[in-house]
Amino acid sequence: MNPTNDPGLRSFIEVPKDSHFPIQNLPYGVFRSKSNQYARVGVAIGNQVLDLGALELAGLFKNTALDDMVVFNRRYLNGFMALGRPFWQEVRARISELLRHDNPELRDNQTLRKKAFIPMDKVEMLLPVNIGDYTDFYSSREHATNVGTMFRGKDNALMPNWLHLPVAYHGRASSIVISGTDIRRPHGQVLPKDAAEPVFSPSHLLDFELEMGFFVGPGSELGYPISAENAMDHIFGMVLVNDWSARDIQKWEYQPLGPFNAKNFATTISPWIVTMDALDAFKVTGPVQAPPPLPYLKSNRESTYDIKLDVSIQSEKMDAPYTVCRSNFKHLYWNIRQQLAHHTITGCNVRPGDMMASGTISGPDKSSFGSMLELTWRGTEPIQLPSGEERKFLNDGDTVVISGYCEGNEYRVGFGEAKGKLLPVKS
Amino acid sequence: MNPTNDPGLRSFIEVPKDSHFPIQNLPYGVFRSKSNQYARVGVAIGNQVLDLGALELAGLFKNTALDDMVVFNRRYLNGFMALGRPFWQEVRARISELLRHDNPELRDNQTLRKKAFIPMDKVEMLLPVNIGDYTDFYSSREHATNVGTMFRGKDNALMPNWLHLPVAYHGRASSIVISGTDIRRPHGQVLPKDAAEPVFSPSHLLDFELEMGFFVGPGSELGYPISAENAMDHIFGMVLVNDWSARDIQKWEYQPLGPFNAKNFATTISPWIVTMDALDAFKVTGPVQAPPPLPYLKSNRESTYDIKLDVSIQSEKMDAPYTVCRSNFKHLYWNIRQQLAHHTITGCNVRPGDMMASGTISGPDKSSFGSMLELTWRGTEPIQLPSGEERKFLNDGDTVVISGYCEGNEYRVGFGEAKGKLLPVKS
Repeated sequence: MNPTNDPGLRSFIEVPKDSHFPIQNLPYGVFRSKSNQYARVGVAIGNQVLDLGALELAGLFKNTALDDMVVFNRRYLNGFMALGRPFWQEVRARISELLRHDNPELRDNQTLRKKAFIPMDKVEMLLPVNIGDYTDFYSSREHATNVGTMFRGKDNALMPNWLHLPVAYHGRASSIVISGTDIRRPHGQVLPKDAAEPVFSPSHLLDFELEMGFFVGPGSELGYPISAENAMDHIFGMVLVNDWSARDIQKWEYQPLGPFNAKNFATTISPWIVTMDALDAFKVTGPVQAPPPLPYLKSNRESTYDIKLDVSIQSEKMDAPYTVCRSNFKHLYWNIRQQLAHHTITGCNVRPGDMMASGTISGPDKSSFGSMLELTWRGTEPIQLPSGEERKFLNDGDTVVISGYCEGNEYRVGFGEAKGKLLPVKS
Repeated sequence: MNPTNDPGLRSFIEVPKDSHFPIQNLPYGVFRSKSNQYARVGVAIGNQVLDLGALELAGLFKNTALDDMVVFNRRYLNGFMALGRPFWQEVRARISELLRHDNPELRDNQTLRKKAFIPMDKVEMLLPVNIGDYTDFYSSREHATNVGTMFRGKDNALMPNWLHLPVAYHGRASSIVISGTDIRRPHGQVLPKDAAEPVFSPSHLLDFELEMGFFVGPGSELGYPISAENAMDHIFGMVLVNDWSARDIQKWEYQPLGPFNAKNFATTISPWIVTMDALDAFKVTGPVQAPPPLPYLKSNRESTYDIKLDVSIQSEKMDAPYTVCRSNFKHLYWNIRQQLAHHTITGCNVRPGDMMASGTISGPDKSSFGSMLELTWRGTEPIQLPSGEERKFLNDGDTVVISGYCEGNEYRVGFGEAKGKLLPVKS
């Protein structure tokens, strides 16, 4: 085991029991604070943000591979992400070392500590990556089966290609927003029931999709596929993703080229990027793949991760969020190595900061379905909220919170949350 | 008429009769030269490139709205594109003025002329824009009808939504390349005829698609649609586009989320961005739209352009390219105002440098079909080349050249070409 993942490690910074951010995690984000509006990179530790920009200025990375490079006093993480795993691991080891309870270097440097630690509730998190291309996969067999069953019946639920390749489509990068950003209910074209002509209307079937996404680190050249075997050299870390979807717009527009306006109005991501090095301690075996994938998609089956995920909804009448879905990243049929290998098998190049999302992560039973579409089975089985309200899809004023973490022995390595409130259409 | 479009204007730089680049055009590109490898912005005039970086350094834009801004000594045009039409028009007027045969300011400044003009065949053109998101529309009724007829029969050729909205999907921005870049035939999954399982194979049905694309200038905020009426304030200019397509990969993968690997390996664009201000002189009335579009898609019907387009193929056995298609941009059913309005009607934001392509531009008769798929009707009616070879789709070694221009009275405002040679799969 990588020593930075040792469950016995402790930091001199207090980490509350159920915190997502113990010393074993060290996720990267970009933030600014009231007293310092310069955007810079930090890591989360307990309820604090450790300002890596301040450590960089103080010269604390000089003895690592970073040397004099400026990677943390930057608006985006792309430069650091481009460096690759040997750099990432060395920096991770250095940050871990600096945060250990038994290392006085930072612990006893009161001047630097005062500058470098900021309470999490005093910072504003920013989109951490300048996202070039955004790709959305469709890698949950349960989700594809549910949706297919609703639209084409049980016997034709999965398309013939689905078990042979990780289906994907290109998404809209410009409208990816950071957790906490309000989401505006979109207008669009919808076809009313039994109507012959579409009407222009607010979307009435607004949905969330529980997803996760990974970020590309070092890119590839056009013409050179990345093999499943080498894929992890190109993957920096992961976030939670809410792929907001307007089901009525989607239904009318999506043939034959796929969803477009139904998805392009917003995608929410969580602010902290949990590195693959931190997730390494939570590797598990993925589902059996039958038929066996073609050779270019063969990968070690232990290439996925046990990440508990949940989605909750809070209406304006509620005092607290109510959990409507509990799922797990490990349910996904296609793993991230296979996704990246498939994406690039044509020679398609990837660039540092590209984001690739999983598609809705539904599990085997109803409580683990990752969208309202599935949870309410197209609105036929509404969800009862503790406030006495019921929901077929989302109402104006509803806040959707996606959360996720890996469960260690007496600690959690978590993602925080991807949260967004649905605002009414602009009048 | 804008005085920069006056057909009577002449430059002191000689412009050959059929040149695409008279003083009425002034398209922008990014280039470098052997003697100066610094990437910078230029305009094409006759067979010369006018180095705007050099003019900027010489202070020749000081008396325009640009003042001291550095917009031409840049790797990409995005900054200039973000400024908006009043800036673009003032700069266009200034460049036009500087190039006039009767203005001594640049004409008689031998030192600056020597520095600022470089023969076109001595420069290397670079991708002129840092393209954020790339969207591909599907706006030719003839193309959609042809493809629909092949795959679903004549009676169900157009999907029910097609006449109501400009269908589109998100494309891959990272693999957009500049004219002259070789294209590598991709591998992928294809389903052999009558087979139950896919195989991994080079694509055997490699195709071009004749398209054009426009670039977004000033962007928009998330949540704020751009109306069809205001769309032109956000559109900088246009290029030729070849949306290379692997038809066998596409057929197997595209259900239900649209083409992915079939398109993500390469898209070629022409290097010179012809501005909407130059194209203004070639506005024409588009097709009648029936049923009438919903109000948010209503636009002045005189919102499209008469741009003659052709595609030629040159095999390795041929001495010259052979024209296989003659089409025209004006055939498109949906115009660029409608495309941008539809794209953003949900509140989807756009950013300076986003590219939106038209989809394959097929005309009414067979000689104007914009892809091999349509020209050979799925390979059933091969094209005869003058070399005695025949083509159903593209062969290794074939060079595809898309060219396009507007015909004025005794002059042309053209796009140059978007050219690419198909290389065999990597062994």
